[in-house]
Amino acid sequence: MKNPFHDILKDVSIDCVIFGFDSQRLKVLLLKWKNSDLCSLPGGRIRHSENLEDAMERTVLERTGLKGVYMQQFYTFGDLNRLHRYGREKTIRVVEAASGIKFENTTLDHRTISVGYYALVNINKVSPMPDAFTDVCIWAEVHDLPDLLFDHNAMVRIALRRLRREFQFQPLGNLLPSKFTLTELRLLYESILDRQLDRRNFHKLVSGHDYLIRLDEKREGTAHKAPYLYKFDLEKFHFAQTTEK
Amino acid sequence: MKNPFHDILKDVSIDCVIFGFDSQRLKVLLLKWKNSDLCSLPGGRIRHSENLEDAMERTVLERTGLKGVYMQQFYTFGDLNRLHRYGREKTIRVVEAASGIKFENTTLDHRTISVGYYALVNINKVSPMPDAFTDVCIWAEVHDLPDLLFDHNAMVRIALRRLRREFQFQPLGNLLPSKFTLTELRLLYESILDRQLDRRNFHKLVSGHDYLIRLDEKREGTAHKAPYLYKFDLEKFHFAQTTEK
Repeated sequence: MKNPFHDILKDVSIDCVIFGFDSQRLKVLLLKWKNSDLCSLPGGRIRHSENLEDAMERTVLERTGLKGVYMQQFYTFGDLNRLHRYGREKTIRVVEAASGIKFENTTLDHRTISVGYYALVNINKVSPMPDAFTDVCIWAEVHDLPDLLFDHNAMVRIALRRLRREFQFQPLGNLLPSKFTLTELRLLYESILDRQLDRRNFHKLVSGHDYLIRLDEKREGTAHKAPYLYKFDLEKFHFAQTTEK
Repeated sequence: MKNPFHDILKDVSIDCVIFGFDSQRLKVLLLKWKNSDLCSLPGGRIRHSENLEDAMERTVLERTGLKGVYMQQFYTFGDLNRLHRYGREKTIRVVEAASGIKFENTTLDHRTISVGYYALVNINKVSPMPDAFTDVCIWAEVHDLPDLLFDHNAMVRIALRRLRREFQFQPLGNLLPSKFTLTELRLLYESILDRQLDRRNFHKLVSGHDYLIRLDEKREGTAHKAPYLYKFDLEKFHFAQTTEK
């Protein structure tokens, strides 16, 4: 048979935690495996001709249709048994049912170290596309994930922790539409931190940042008094990032 | 010839940024290559039987004699040309001169992705030991490094940036002797941040932390008025870490 590793690295792969925000909660993109109820993160192999970032950009493009997405490497996963969360037998059954190929002829029977990246995307711009082993894409709430294949629950947990830690350095604007309300911004912060924030203090705090611009425009069509729309001044945001580092 | 990859992963290695503090400045452990003026970080291969952390612990033990050291994965380096900072020809000459083996028979002629870890050690407890390719160990000042082989200057820079970012979460006590003066603690902070801190503000700030304990004991033998010694209460420190996350 053909060597399945002929143009890809044998021992390393990448996995992608793609975060989106639906105006209410922080979500993560999952792929449901064919002939199975189980989901995993998008991910894939690294070609010999690719830098790590190239492989990640290709994978995000293939799964979302988006180019130039903000992404960050967050951790590399190398535990010996990381692919066999449900035991080797069950993993074999899931992979064989989804792929129609014998497990030993897939690259999954080889110990693989995976480099984890997260991406921040505007959920409205994504056209989710399953890969060869999967048939449905799901945006799952980050604090209410199903049991995922492999070590992918741990990946989401660690990506979220990293996102929280690097909070002030992150261009969160990537998760928002170009214009948003302060309530949407607060819901995004709350969803990342997984706790409620005092509404008034939050508004006071964010108004102090000169990279948040109030527009002369309101969100129409809401039941309450129409709220102002805001946008990020990405140039000022970038400056604030740089000086804080 | 024997397959040089028979018990190690082919596409992945680890590299270690081992930080120590000599009471004045933050240092990093380097290895000078045999028959060359060039240095690199300690690092090595991952065995098929090892988790990533196992490989890192083994490498730190082999290079420092220390077990149970505080370590943190910080980034994975995968650029296509990362091993050839000085061009492929010069790298080949350095490796052949140091090893006495033909370059193509070493594992260095294969594209390798490297997982970077940093370690925080008590410099006084380290017994530095070179590896097969190197003959001298050097503690170099982190802000005044020589040009290193491969992409190792970038590794130190990124490890330091991560150390700064995760400052409040880091058990910096690992870099200090069990008892230290406030001046030593300030010099450590200054060395990590690479800027001077106001002495009085610093002392006020750190005294506010209940995990810093002033001992009933002074540092003797100094020219000035003998300063008090301090220690970290690691249990309280750990609690502060957990709640801040």
